[in-house]
Amino acid sequence: MPELRKDPVTGRWVIISTERRKRPSAFRLEHVAPLTGIVCPFCEGNEEYTPREVLSYRRNGAAANGPGWDVRVVPNKFPALQVEGGLDRQGEGLFDKMNGVGAHEVIIETPQHDASLATLPAVAIERILWAYRERVLDLRQDRRFRYILVFKNHGPAAGASLDHPHSQLIALPVVPRIVRDEIAGAKQHFQHKERCVYCDIIRQELDQRVRVIAENAEFVALSPYAPRFPFETWIIPKRHGASFEEAPRHEYDALARMLKETLQRMNRALESPPFNLIIHSSPFSENTAEYYHWHIEIMPTLTKVAGFEWGSGFYINPTAPEEAAEVLREVVV
Amino acid sequence: MPELRKDPVTGRWVIISTERRKRPSAFRLEHVAPLTGIVCPFCEGNEEYTPREVLSYRRNGAAANGPGWDVRVVPNKFPALQVEGGLDRQGEGLFDKMNGVGAHEVIIETPQHDASLATLPAVAIERILWAYRERVLDLRQDRRFRYILVFKNHGPAAGASLDHPHSQLIALPVVPRIVRDEIAGAKQHFQHKERCVYCDIIRQELDQRVRVIAENAEFVALSPYAPRFPFETWIIPKRHGASFEEAPRHEYDALARMLKETLQRMNRALESPPFNLIIHSSPFSENTAEYYHWHIEIMPTLTKVAGFEWGSGFYINPTAPEEAAEVLREVVV
Repeated sequence: MPELRKDPVTGRWVIISTERRKRPSAFRLEHVAPLTGIVCPFCEGNEEYTPREVLSYRRNGAAANGPGWDVRVVPNKFPALQVEGGLDRQGEGLFDKMNGVGAHEVIIETPQHDASLATLPAVAIERILWAYRERVLDLRQDRRFRYILVFKNHGPAAGASLDHPHSQLIALPVVPRIVRDEIAGAKQHFQHKERCVYCDIIRQELDQRVRVIAENAEFVALSPYAPRFPFETWIIPKRHGASFEEAPRHEYDALARMLKETLQRMNRALESPPFNLIIHSSPFSENTAEYYHWHIEIMPTLTKVAGFEWGSGFYINPTAPEEAAEVLREVVV
Repeated sequence: MPELRKDPVTGRWVIISTERRKRPSAFRLEHVAPLTGIVCPFCEGNEEYTPREVLSYRRNGAAANGPGWDVRVVPNKFPALQVEGGLDRQGEGLFDKMNGVGAHEVIIETPQHDASLATLPAVAIERILWAYRERVLDLRQDRRFRYILVFKNHGPAAGASLDHPHSQLIALPVVPRIVRDEIAGAKQHFQHKERCVYCDIIRQELDQRVRVIAENAEFVALSPYAPRFPFETWIIPKRHGASFEEAPRHEYDALARMLKETLQRMNRALESPPFNLIIHSSPFSENTAEYYHWHIEIMPTLTKVAGFEWGSGFYINPTAPEEAAEVLREVVV
């Protein structure tokens, strides 16, 4: 019998479809394999092809905008939003608009064209997380911005237009609705119970152990109870905290290790799938400290979103999270 | 300068990105062309490959479940939801679930394997719309259901697994959140103004004429002010009405003609793109007659939804609706 399941934070329903049940081998898997032999604007030595860097971690004092870096952050050459100017909110009869003011930056994760978060050493991943943190702390001082979304598209099917390992960051003048929904759900839970809903989820999951994929001292990786997509995976800090950028220093090391392990497990089980990774963190303009809990969501691109999803906001998921967790847990890393 | 625009019904923001501005020729277009030479379960003569029909329009009294039909409705062979059983709502600690009870049917639009809504005569399209209506009127008598979504995925990139022209219908035991958002927004507008927000949109669009694509006596096709996707197109009845299935008889004829014309325009301008089509209609369990207004949304599959969209619910659209409307309007049909 298929099941309808409700996400305990947002109230979003999903259909866990047993008739359409799929094990990893049943997906038409698209493997991500970087092309070589083309001029890549993100490779070391090609710094002139990107806008001037806003941050870099460099070896032995190498000069900015040249070789000698480990991580480099540059404005997006084709930004979705523009960093200069005021918001200039306007009406147009019924309609409302404002200037597309925001920041759109690219975090070039490594000089190595064919590396990935699954293959880089944990210490290199920690540096990337640290670069996210530094950029968020800097941009959140800009009073025009209400939210900063850090995300990664891996592979063409997941929307990446360049192969070289990179993440992106978009600073927005409004708090996005998905974040709004999470905040509202978490706040409601707190008002009822005086507990954080994510802390409650962690406790129940660690107790039941059917959806847990991996765990270390600081983080747990799990298949959420009501996942939109097959093999959707969340990485949640065990310690309560609302903001990624305010996590204590030692958590970045533990997160780097958990992220690497999770992606290694996905690569083994799903043959290096394309994926989207998103950091869910509190809007800095609101005090959500008591009830919101930052985390990372990773969604491998295995299915196509179609008319039913676009029309309903419901998702049909052919793989139960208990099965996905079992598959990912049993991978030997 | 890019623009942030707000949908006047749901409050959803989109980014109209000018830096990433795209004319039709700039999309990597995927053309939909049906394969032939395989055994198709939806072709005439192959009725034995589908579950037994629940409705068909037949010529000269041909017997059910054999050849001689114009439109045929069958249960989906791999249904996302199951039609038998009770909802059996249950908790599991923090989590909530219920049985995946619902109906999942396939509307086989024509016996012709290589036809499409753009090539069929208007009278054949009207028959398909009539079949939607009959199935909705039947299924909404089932007290377990709260909503029925009628939709179509055209082409593999839009999620269709079979080439033969078909639409689908899913009856759900809950009202989906996208419908909820529209209902809530339309209700709020009505409470402020005592007018339907969609009627207001139609009036403003027909007045300004920058986003109107086509029009007949009963319907207008337009590019919405805040579209999520390039060339997203809405077809809205001019007469106020909350439910597709309660439209007066002559509107189905006018809709068939407008749908055909709109899809012909898309096929010319975008080289037969894959698309999703969704009927947005009122939940039958609620009285929304004063403030909700049914309509059709069509979204060609031209871009990939990626991390930013999944993490924010915001959409980056590289084609302004004014440009899309101009391109579609200027096509000679």
